Amino acid sequence: MAEKNKTPNRRTYYRKPRAPKAEQPAVPIHIYPLGGLGEVGKNITLYECEGDMILVDCGSVFPDGEMYGIDLVIPDFTFVEENKDKIKALFITHGHEDHIGSIPYLLKRIGTDLPIYGTRLTCGLIRNKLEEFGLAGAANLIDITPRQKIKQGCFTVEPIHVNHSIPDAVAYAIDSPAGVVIQTGDFKIDYTPLACGVTDLATLADYGSKGVLALLSDSTNAERPGFTATEQTVANSLHNLFLQARNKRIIIATFASNLYRVQQIINIAQEEGRKVAFSGRSMVNNTAMAQELGYMNIPDGVLIDIDQLGQYPPEQVVLITTGSQGEPLSALSRMAMNSHRNVKVGPGDFIIISATPIPGNEKNVTKIVNGLLLLGAEVIYERMYDVHVSGHACQEEQKLMLTLTKPRYFLPVHGEYKQLKRHALTAAGLGIPPENIVIAENGEHVMLSKDSLQLGEPVTADAVLVDGLGVGDVGNVVLRDRKHLSEDGLVIMVATVDSMTGEVVAGPDLVSRGFVYVRENEELMEGAREVVQNTLDRCRRERVRDWASVKTRVREALTGYIYRKTKRSPMILPILMEV
Amino acid sequence: MAEKNKTPNRRTYYRKPRAPKAEQPAVPIHIYPLGGLGEVGKNITLYECEGDMILVDCGSVFPDGEMYGIDLVIPDFTFVEENKDKIKALFITHGHEDHIGSIPYLLKRIGTDLPIYGTRLTCGLIRNKLEEFGLAGAANLIDITPRQKIKQGCFTVEPIHVNHSIPDAVAYAIDSPAGVVIQTGDFKIDYTPLACGVTDLATLADYGSKGVLALLSDSTNAERPGFTATEQTVANSLHNLFLQARNKRIIIATFASNLYRVQQIINIAQEEGRKVAFSGRSMVNNTAMAQELGYMNIPDGVLIDIDQLGQYPPEQVVLITTGSQGEPLSALSRMAMNSHRNVKVGPGDFIIISATPIPGNEKNVTKIVNGLLLLGAEVIYERMYDVHVSGHACQEEQKLMLTLTKPRYFLPVHGEYKQLKRHALTAAGLGIPPENIVIAENGEHVMLSKDSLQLGEPVTADAVLVDGLGVGDVGNVVLRDRKHLSEDGLVIMVATVDSMTGEVVAGPDLVSRGFVYVRENEELMEGAREVVQNTLDRCRRERVRDWASVKTRVREALTGYIYRKTKRSPMILPILMEV
Repeated sequence: MAEKNKTPNRRTYYRKPRAPKAEQPAVPIHIYPLGGLGEVGKNITLYECEGDMILVDCGSVFPDGEMYGIDLVIPDFTFVEENKDKIKALFITHGHEDHIGSIPYLLKRIGTDLPIYGTRLTCGLIRNKLEEFGLAGAANLIDITPRQKIKQGCFTVEPIHVNHSIPDAVAYAIDSPAGVVIQTGDFKIDYTPLACGVTDLATLADYGSKGVLALLSDSTNAERPGFTATEQTVANSLHNLFLQARNKRIIIATFASNLYRVQQIINIAQEEGRKVAFSGRSMVNNTAMAQELGYMNIPDGVLIDIDQLGQYPPEQVVLITTGSQGEPLSALSRMAMNSHRNVKVGPGDFIIISATPIPGNEKNVTKIVNGLLLLGAEVIYERMYDVHVSGHACQEEQKLMLTLTKPRYFLPVHGEYKQLKRHALTAAGLGIPPENIVIAENGEHVMLSKDSLQLGEPVTADAVLVDGLGVGDVGNVVLRDRKHLSEDGLVIMVATVDSMTGEVVAGPDLVSRGFVYVRENEELMEGAREVVQNTLDRCRRERVRDWASVKTRVREALTGYIYRKTKRSPMILPILMEV
Repeated sequence: MAEKNKTPNRRTYYRKPRAPKAEQPAVPIHIYPLGGLGEVGKNITLYECEGDMILVDCGSVFPDGEMYGIDLVIPDFTFVEENKDKIKALFITHGHEDHIGSIPYLLKRIGTDLPIYGTRLTCGLIRNKLEEFGLAGAANLIDITPRQKIKQGCFTVEPIHVNHSIPDAVAYAIDSPAGVVIQTGDFKIDYTPLACGVTDLATLADYGSKGVLALLSDSTNAERPGFTATEQTVANSLHNLFLQARNKRIIIATFASNLYRVQQIINIAQEEGRKVAFSGRSMVNNTAMAQELGYMNIPDGVLIDIDQLGQYPPEQVVLITTGSQGEPLSALSRMAMNSHRNVKVGPGDFIIISATPIPGNEKNVTKIVNGLLLLGAEVIYERMYDVHVSGHACQEEQKLMLTLTKPRYFLPVHGEYKQLKRHALTAAGLGIPPENIVIAENGEHVMLSKDSLQLGEPVTADAVLVDGLGVGDVGNVVLRDRKHLSEDGLVIMVATVDSMTGEVVAGPDLVSRGFVYVRENEELMEGAREVVQNTLDRCRRERVRDWASVKTRVREALTGYIYRKTKRSPMILPILMEV
């Protein structure tokens, strides 16, 4: 699905033509971004130096609207598999799906021996995911802490603490014979975070002073000027809303992975004398794991089961739920549609959606807001109050990252082309020479050394579609058919013919699905049957006995007839059986 | 498709229970909103007083993502048709699709005699639309001007000039024996519009002083505080961007109906010594008609044909194009995909998208921005500069409208429930008693008189789906099938059986579409064929000769097998033919 746009001038910031293999004056590091460029999601980068390889992140992405019936999109692991003997380890920056979601698929391809490094919470989330695939026992997960250096092949990798919307996120400084590359992962800079401290600016600056060959930095918010506000603003805002809610029950929807946010809500609830219940599978699982690992602190007696909600007056409870993106099957969606098993929403509810709709989810969120309002609830949504802050760096933070690390080369990563481009302009504005900035695409082969930047031959880095148990078995033909079927349905013509005489001995019958409601369109279908009968008769008179030709003629006649009558083009499927 | 949510407390602002028919102390006016409530689009309202009826607006709306293959959604005209002898006229507020789009469908149902009133430009746009349906000659279109009172039955209707994003928009003051109802249509208040003057506040105030029974007011921007900025800010911003573009070719995408915007661009182009070309069918048609009717002023020598673009240096041309919403088939989309016949985009282009993405269109707009940037163009999009202002009133303007007209009853219209609700809160904040505010839904029967507000029995007001030539023939069953087909495709099992012996004489054959790529899944399909064969054999052994039962058993066996093997649920279609 990944479109390769080969327009010549797309790499505005790349200077040199692809060079024939020349003698390298210095050891190069090879960077292959295999996902996450020109898209938001499925981040994965492969590094190679002196024959050793490591991977950073291994994410998935949700299908876009054109990928009918697809459950998940993962990177193409062909290049990884071809080089599996060289790959020393996988380093994960944090536990969001777009950074860990395709690990199970990777392990199935290259085996479970691969060492996977991540901080403790990150490993916990990976373990949960691997359990769903029956791989948790076999996998080689290794907990690490920031500043702990890991040697793998010729690489020495140091995790560096960064702020993000999930605890325990890190950047990686990757030291290699070619120099140091810093990959930020997703980050922001929060001077007053709720826990775990500020992004480790000192270590980043230290690397910068010693010399950084390249920086790969998060571009998600590259179009936004200024600074991302601190989680503290959300805490203040939520506290005010708790006061506003007075004697109503409070329901707050947020991301299950945003444990800071969940902890905040628990803290405020406790202050205000409210019990807390969780709703939604991922919310229940994530908070349980976070408590177990010590990432959350829930005082005794605060937590109640969702079944116990009714035992308390509304002003004494808070329900924290999934569904902040309007996901149609989520707990919040079921509440809005009045079909939640435990929770009936009404005028006694004060509901806060503590998230901003991700592009593409606006309509689903609106549907839920309408539903909740219709039930009489008060609803705080979108930008009505500061009930959400982004997890990603805005322009000023991106500038700080660039300024501290002072990289020779810069590769904006994690983002649509428009965001990568904007990030490149920001870097150029800070004085990084445009010829040292590469807006790469998935599969690009970027070779960097102290004195040169070159592009090699690209490698395979398409999107692989997961549908049910099938990985990659749904391709363009199947998707095109699904699109066609979704628009106008199909009409099947089936007939049994005598293989000796060519005479039709049963049928022709027409069966349609997704086309028109047949009972109300008997005339149309009768006309269609006549068209088919006439075509078959003509074939017989003309002694056309090649069934493929007969089918083609039936398809053409039927397509023409139906289009004239309805201006629609259903899929036409002629089936002939011989007896 | 219109969901009727019958939750008891949804009418927060409605006081009285449905009353049994009581003696009316005063003549009531009956208001039936047949579209546009709880949704954005297909606006239509029916008014009845003393047995006379009039309609205001007759719009359409584009299908949402769940309406597979649907081209257009129109109101259900059942109630209109039932009352067609009482209906005196249709009044149109302005020429946007959500106010005129279903006029052809209405005329087909109730005949072309119906007088249709609109201002000159509005009638011009309706005429264009009717021409596509071969109805322009027969229709009874009547040009009106603001302040011109029209008598129809017991109604006297006065159009009142309002500002909007299309010229010649009006509100209507509908005087009836029950009192005056003001319906704003879409409006905003622009103190420095580019033409046609400010919304006629004096006339609105005059009605207010004399007494307004009810106000039906535009809720689109009810969630936005403050005032919508004047078109003048766009003019200033565009002028600056023209200077910034220097020696580049300028391409501006905007709404074809926003003739003010187009005129502005032409004015600036002329000042800056640039020629103007149009691209996109609706842009070409609308500007031609607007020129003809005198709504646009294009000095001689400024306009050039799109084919002549190449004859001028880039700094001497501006191309005004459709596609500002990312419509996949639009001129701008073709430019972004490098497939436009006349226009090749490159680093010499400065492209301005002078519009904000309507919710749901964000992803399409992003796709186009990425495409244009990849081609090397400079692109100004979204909120980078003030290149767009809304056509709808924000909260302060809504307050002004409420304050000037001083209605006894208030009905927020044009909007999703969350917008209607917000507008209701704004009105309540101005002192309109909550019990005099009705958040109605489509099909509601609202009876208003000087001394009472009552709700009658609702009337039919569903959404009718248009697919090709079919109006209303695609219902829920067909849509459900299309959705199913789009997700997992289908598998057809076809077999010919001997009607005497029950023996299978041809097949069973399996044909699939949109399921898996069969050539790569031969084993799966072979297994499926065996499952079918076994099921048919078993049926035969058990002497099951009722074909419906046989089909059911085949369907169940195949569904189970395929789900176990693939975790997918394609539609299974067993077809048996008898010889």
